[in-house]
Amino acid sequence: MTFHVITLFPELVEQCCNSSIIGRAFGNGVINLELINLRDFAINSYGSVDDYTYGGGAGMLIACEPVYNAYQKIMEKLPGGSSVRTIYTTPQARVFTQTDAKELSRENDDIIFICGHYEGIDERVLQKIVTDYYSIGDYVLTGGELPVAVIIDAVARLIPGVLNNDESAETESFNDGLLEYPQYTRPKVWQEMEVPPVLLSGDHKKVGEWRHFMAKERTKERRPELYTKYLEERGIW
Amino acid sequence: MTFHVITLFPELVEQCCNSSIIGRAFGNGVINLELINLRDFAINSYGSVDDYTYGGGAGMLIACEPVYNAYQKIMEKLPGGSSVRTIYTTPQARVFTQTDAKELSRENDDIIFICGHYEGIDERVLQKIVTDYYSIGDYVLTGGELPVAVIIDAVARLIPGVLNNDESAETESFNDGLLEYPQYTRPKVWQEMEVPPVLLSGDHKKVGEWRHFMAKERTKERRPELYTKYLEERGIW
Repeated sequence: MTFHVITLFPELVEQCCNSSIIGRAFGNGVINLELINLRDFAINSYGSVDDYTYGGGAGMLIACEPVYNAYQKIMEKLPGGSSVRTIYTTPQARVFTQTDAKELSRENDDIIFICGHYEGIDERVLQKIVTDYYSIGDYVLTGGELPVAVIIDAVARLIPGVLNNDESAETESFNDGLLEYPQYTRPKVWQEMEVPPVLLSGDHKKVGEWRHFMAKERTKERRPELYTKYLEERGIW
Repeated sequence: MTFHVITLFPELVEQCCNSSIIGRAFGNGVINLELINLRDFAINSYGSVDDYTYGGGAGMLIACEPVYNAYQKIMEKLPGGSSVRTIYTTPQARVFTQTDAKELSRENDDIIFICGHYEGIDERVLQKIVTDYYSIGDYVLTGGELPVAVIIDAVARLIPGVLNNDESAETESFNDGLLEYPQYTRPKVWQEMEVPPVLLSGDHKKVGEWRHFMAKERTKERRPELYTKYLEERGIW
């Protein structure tokens, strides 16, 4: 899979993506990162990509033409007639989840990402090319580079051959709709705190029951809305 | 404010943090980044920080002692008797929001972050030192470095002196509980798509009304749960 990223700060996206475990998988043939500098598609000889906002307001808006031309440049290289998932990360969107990560990891040879900056991007070019709008959460960041790196990390680690066996064997959160149970390693007693005796019992059935109980308790306490959903899906009211 | 980050990959956190607009503000005296390599607090001469999980299960767990010793090393340098917000990013937590970012940006001279890796960290040391558990969203990432960079970005940009005036003047999402309205810049017609005429009218009252209407429509469509909350808070049912 190739991740194409349209950004004003290509070197920052590169650093961000290299700064995670999946960084080492880029360029191994399984996943690739292609960076497109929006500045190369400036609307004038001063290198501008942005302009004032119609109707007033502080801040500059990225114009249609640079974004569209950068997008066209990517599309020219891809097999003709293909439709390519084109993602814009913005707080003005529904929130990205693990279900989205799984879905994106499966069916795509190429994904295009557009990193926003300043006040955002002219609505018309978004309407024309964007297939998916995602927010990574209800908070405001300085730009679209970290959100794109987060989505790439979440998607890439699900692609076979990206993580090694040890890593991909990890117990996953959200798989059954519950948070993970607490975990312990040596020593048995640390600063007068003991490992729960059941985990030392060697009784796999009891260990399993205890973990499931603790997963439910933790979800109930920390994420009551997930717990409600968990009960509903199982017909427990 | 100083962000202290305990991590197995200090160079990756540094890249991540430098890869955003706030990167340039580090070291200017307003915000600082202190990286603590967990590997320096290994439990044996092989440099191990992790061990097998009690009760069985794939993957390794980071042990109590390295994390606690790294934490103590930070605390020794801070004024005695102070209590310091200590954040662990994990999917097993409530989701970080803009409200948390605002709160963290205000009252703290120092914040300590712990980046998880592998299967996680022994529960006992978390119980002992962590004051806040945050998830940045319901998806799984390869490690704690990107989430910590996201929280640092969200918090740092709210600290006076980090962003310049242009940047901080940006209209903020979530400020009134609605998503932002669509925005447009030149040209007036792009690929046969026109800028909505009201934005060219010069009538500030009408522009404001249109934007408020569009913000409501967009929130209703993309984030129905936020829209319900918006109505409820205004006593509209």
